[in-house]
Amino acid sequence: MGRVTARRPVLRITGPSGDSTGGTTVRRPDSLAVEEPLEIRLGGRSLSVTMRTPGDDIDLVHGFLLGEGIIGSASDVSVIRYCDGVDSDGANTYNVLDVALAPGVSPPTGADRQFLTTSACGVCGKASLEAVRVRSRYDLTAPDPVVTASTLASMPTTLRARQRVFDSTGGLHAAGLFTPDGALLAIREDVGRHNAVDKVLGWALTADRVPLREAILAVSGRASFELVQKAVVAGVPILAAVSAPSSLAVDLATESGLSLVGFLRGETMNVYSGEARITPA
Amino acid sequence: MGRVTARRPVLRITGPSGDSTGGTTVRRPDSLAVEEPLEIRLGGRSLSVTMRTPGDDIDLVHGFLLGEGIIGSASDVSVIRYCDGVDSDGANTYNVLDVALAPGVSPPTGADRQFLTTSACGVCGKASLEAVRVRSRYDLTAPDPVVTASTLASMPTTLRARQRVFDSTGGLHAAGLFTPDGALLAIREDVGRHNAVDKVLGWALTADRVPLREAILAVSGRASFELVQKAVVAGVPILAAVSAPSSLAVDLATESGLSLVGFLRGETMNVYSGEARITPA
Repeated sequence: MGRVTARRPVLRITGPSGDSTGGTTVRRPDSLAVEEPLEIRLGGRSLSVTMRTPGDDIDLVHGFLLGEGIIGSASDVSVIRYCDGVDSDGANTYNVLDVALAPGVSPPTGADRQFLTTSACGVCGKASLEAVRVRSRYDLTAPDPVVTASTLASMPTTLRARQRVFDSTGGLHAAGLFTPDGALLAIREDVGRHNAVDKVLGWALTADRVPLREAILAVSGRASFELVQKAVVAGVPILAAVSAPSSLAVDLATESGLSLVGFLRGETMNVYSGEARITPA
Repeated sequence: MGRVTARRPVLRITGPSGDSTGGTTVRRPDSLAVEEPLEIRLGGRSLSVTMRTPGDDIDLVHGFLLGEGIIGSASDVSVIRYCDGVDSDGANTYNVLDVALAPGVSPPTGADRQFLTTSACGVCGKASLEAVRVRSRYDLTAPDPVVTASTLASMPTTLRARQRVFDSTGGLHAAGLFTPDGALLAIREDVGRHNAVDKVLGWALTADRVPLREAILAVSGRASFELVQKAVVAGVPILAAVSAPSSLAVDLATESGLSLVGFLRGETMNVYSGEARITPA
């Protein structure tokens, strides 16, 4: 695609204070993470626009549709292709993907996510979970797999070592899928952490690995409700985040049986739910 | 509100590797940033649901409606109130806000954001900007205000010192409005950085300070297209971010005349656009 990074001129200012002569300025090009809109269409009708880093778009769309509960396997998608229109310069933008669902797979009606149609006000606590969650096809009640704390501790290092674009831009989130012994299955990067997760889970779906019963999903940032939900819907039993989880992330993880690990830094971590799968060895 | 932080039990694991006896585990309560859905309604009809940290909800809704181009001043809102329904425990959830627009203010039709109705595929580069942007009521062509690099450098420290909830949870983004001489006007926190920005810009709107011609918006994280857009629509001339901007953030800032500063750390920073307003002193 050649559009994952872009160069822009920048004025770099160093050490402005404590120096009566002012700071040093240097003009140079800077590498930035590319952010562009991706419009996802179902049968020609616009479903969603997400601001994403181009690349792995097919994975992203599969992961997005999985997370929304619209598809459950790669075979639920009949055809997926870039719209063949062109921009004002006559070039395909590769920013619109149109999905044809397989026969028998229903597009969302607008009533699938209850918050679109609720007439009550019960969007709080337990009720709020019900209002915004997507039903998973899989349950996470099985006690396995088990992973050691030292294996979990190795994952952020592995992610960071493989994050090629982050190194040049400092602007991307990463999501990786690991085996219980710490082997990396796949990694994806994006300006949006939800997109990075959609991309890596969409990769798994197209590789017929969903439900990901034996996988650990590791993410470079915080663990929100949305990320826990995406893991649960893909059948992932363990989610490990480098930063803090939110209250609703912990609540959904607890209710779903997902093992949620946060503040995974160096050799320390917090286990917020599903601790039977984590051994402190 | 009492719902900004929540306590959950956590298993803390320390130092698992390099020790044949395994790591140390401690069970203790942990403070988390609360994340709950807020449903925004216009005249009783659902407009959007955002996952936010409760508190400053009225500000958030004003800022959200401003950013979407639906309102331009506090007087464009006639009434805004929490829906008086109750959850299954008989308590008001305070998670649904219903807005009545003032006479003459039109609700969005669904065609206002072009990406909802576009039939072409020109969602790329210059065209993509046009497709997803919200038109601003204000232009940022005036060369003022001017701010010194040392004043900018002080802002992340000020934000961090005032981020009370972050200190206990590690889970919140902050957005602050400053004067050109570095005085803090307002700060808001949220699990979502777009919500933190909506809250602080919404505060400004209700205080009749929009357009914020003399203000600097400083944010604790990265600068995405979305945050630049919110600044532009509120008439803010300078946006300073602690982390990286995206390509589209720089493009929109350049086109709009916004001064965009990134990687604002210690006494160094990158100026991506509008450098006439930044003096390296």
